[in-house]
Amino acid sequence: MTERTIESVRIAEGRFEGTSNEGETDEHDTLPIIFPITGAQLLKPIVHGGDLGEAMRRFPNAPRPWLDLSTGINPVPYQVGDLPEEAWARLPSHDEERALLAAAAKRYGVRDQATLLAAPGTQALIQLLPRVVPKSRVAVLGPTYEEHEVCWARQGHDVSVVDDVAKAADADVLIVVNPDNPTGRLLAAEELGHPNRLLVVDEAFIDFLPAATSLVGKLPPRTVVLRSFGKTYGLAGLRLGFAIGPPDLIARLAAELGPWAVPGPALAIGRRALVDDAWLAAAKARLEWDGQRLDDLLGASDFMPLGATPLFRLVRHDDVPGMVERLGRQGIHVRAFSGQPQWLRFGLPGSDEAFRRLAGVVRK
Amino acid sequence: MTERTIESVRIAEGRFEGTSNEGETDEHDTLPIIFPITGAQLLKPIVHGGDLGEAMRRFPNAPRPWLDLSTGINPVPYQVGDLPEEAWARLPSHDEERALLAAAAKRYGVRDQATLLAAPGTQALIQLLPRVVPKSRVAVLGPTYEEHEVCWARQGHDVSVVDDVAKAADADVLIVVNPDNPTGRLLAAEELGHPNRLLVVDEAFIDFLPAATSLVGKLPPRTVVLRSFGKTYGLAGLRLGFAIGPPDLIARLAAELGPWAVPGPALAIGRRALVDDAWLAAAKARLEWDGQRLDDLLGASDFMPLGATPLFRLVRHDDVPGMVERLGRQGIHVRAFSGQPQWLRFGLPGSDEAFRRLAGVVRK
Repeated sequence: MTERTIESVRIAEGRFEGTSNEGETDEHDTLPIIFPITGAQLLKPIVHGGDLGEAMRRFPNAPRPWLDLSTGINPVPYQVGDLPEEAWARLPSHDEERALLAAAAKRYGVRDQATLLAAPGTQALIQLLPRVVPKSRVAVLGPTYEEHEVCWARQGHDVSVVDDVAKAADADVLIVVNPDNPTGRLLAAEELGHPNRLLVVDEAFIDFLPAATSLVGKLPPRTVVLRSFGKTYGLAGLRLGFAIGPPDLIARLAAELGPWAVPGPALAIGRRALVDDAWLAAAKARLEWDGQRLDDLLGASDFMPLGATPLFRLVRHDDVPGMVERLGRQGIHVRAFSGQPQWLRFGLPGSDEAFRRLAGVVRK
Repeated sequence: MTERTIESVRIAEGRFEGTSNEGETDEHDTLPIIFPITGAQLLKPIVHGGDLGEAMRRFPNAPRPWLDLSTGINPVPYQVGDLPEEAWARLPSHDEERALLAAAAKRYGVRDQATLLAAPGTQALIQLLPRVVPKSRVAVLGPTYEEHEVCWARQGHDVSVVDDVAKAADADVLIVVNPDNPTGRLLAAEELGHPNRLLVVDEAFIDFLPAATSLVGKLPPRTVVLRSFGKTYGLAGLRLGFAIGPPDLIARLAAELGPWAVPGPALAIGRRALVDDAWLAAAKARLEWDGQRLDDLLGASDFMPLGATPLFRLVRHDDVPGMVERLGRQGIHVRAFSGQPQWLRFGLPGSDEAFRRLAGVVRK
């Protein structure tokens, strides 16, 4: 597991290795009090899956390559193929951006052209949203992906985590990851809509569920939906995500993102992948099959199922540290949760070999 | 020339074509007054070079491919080569980010590890900086790249454009593009430093000038330097840029950017290119040679030189609309300036063929 702390001081420390800290320290003194750096300090460290560095250092003798099951990312990526040189060399053009948005509109069922925005990853939108909404009482339905809570709190909002939508009655903003990461909890639109608050629905894991589970086709008023490209298409390194919401909010987010926010390669790959319905259907069938296979494997061992989406399984185990250790020694990285010491999340293995390696550790 | 307006309403209009605007309009009503969208509206349209779409529509019969001289981007890109599948598929890792920062530190002569930040393009940093500095009197040395002025004004700062550093005496923040785009004006560190204000120096066009012209090696206190990867390495579509500045400001910018801000392909290519000193030296020699060739070509016609950097030339011409028309009909896109009707900016042609096409139009 890699621990990423977003406390400003700790980010600044040790950002890269092997560089001595000499010389210019005096010249880089902090700004005087007349230029305080605006905004909150930190908050708490956030742990994310998907970074093998610490696991590889902890288990240096594990067999390579590592099998990373610590995220909920499709393990079989869309084929990038050859990109035109212009995608790399030229500034991303408006025509390319429009083509990406047209493909995304078709894919997500967005009918109103002013309600859709492309961004360099959903995380970029999670960072931006709290900046364009005035200071509010914000409720996050949790436990869930922690960046929502931390990003709203960093911008000075009054944030609380609630375990039931009913407990968010007095919130100005409600944030729901739907289906939830990591619990898999899936709520219906009628459980979420509320005329007097802003609703943010992070649908990062919804692509392989039935289309009717998404709120995009039936957006309650004052709702922003976030969609992730990278998880679905197995291209998390590409950084591409979308927001769908009220035109005034979308326009404001666009102005905050600024020009050329989505890189040329992401524009070129995204516009192709998003209209490739055959690929998506095949990926869905494969993930359903492999999900059943993962359920069978975990069910035959001492894991109790707690939740699921098509891209991961959440299970309970009596000895998570021991299991993480056993898996790590075999070069398999999974996701544990410091606040929930009996939880483990498994992403889907992407090959027979990956299933074989996992079975070799978890089978009784 | 493509006109990009950042007024929120106009961004929202017509973002993609061929999509009817039916159905959900009522459901996407604007937020009620209890959720006003924070921040300024816009301001004024910004014109950027580097987008051929409008020129191609204006001159539909021009020969293809178009020759785009409207930007100051190295026309001979660094070779991207084959990227490892992980660069696309996996979330960008801390180890990869550290490797990129180590390469950038070596390239830019940054000695203090807490003073460097990578971002998905310098523009992303220009958008971020005004958000982390409290409301200030901001002076932009101009005329220059307009995004600085607009981004600070959008965040509510009191922004003025001054034509002399001496006129910025009462500013809390001074912003200088150095060398300037488009005038080529180059100021020395001692002309810029000032103990009682924040200095932002955008060194987007400095890479092929002598190293001593950069402020990185002799940063005045409370200075932020921005460096552009895409212009120098001819990879503007990649979106990669850097900030060098006081650790507290860098840490705050890092927190605002959030995790995985630089895509995997940019990490992989950047760390390779930034330490390829031989490539950079060859590019510098080629650009100097081609710059002289461009000077000779323009000087032999009715252009008067106004300014230069290794990546572009600014000239005056008595009939800019006529020249833009003549060039456009031959499929050559250059940069004009609405506020300076006699100015034209030429990026460097990247091949003999490109020089031949340009000569065919501009030669008397």
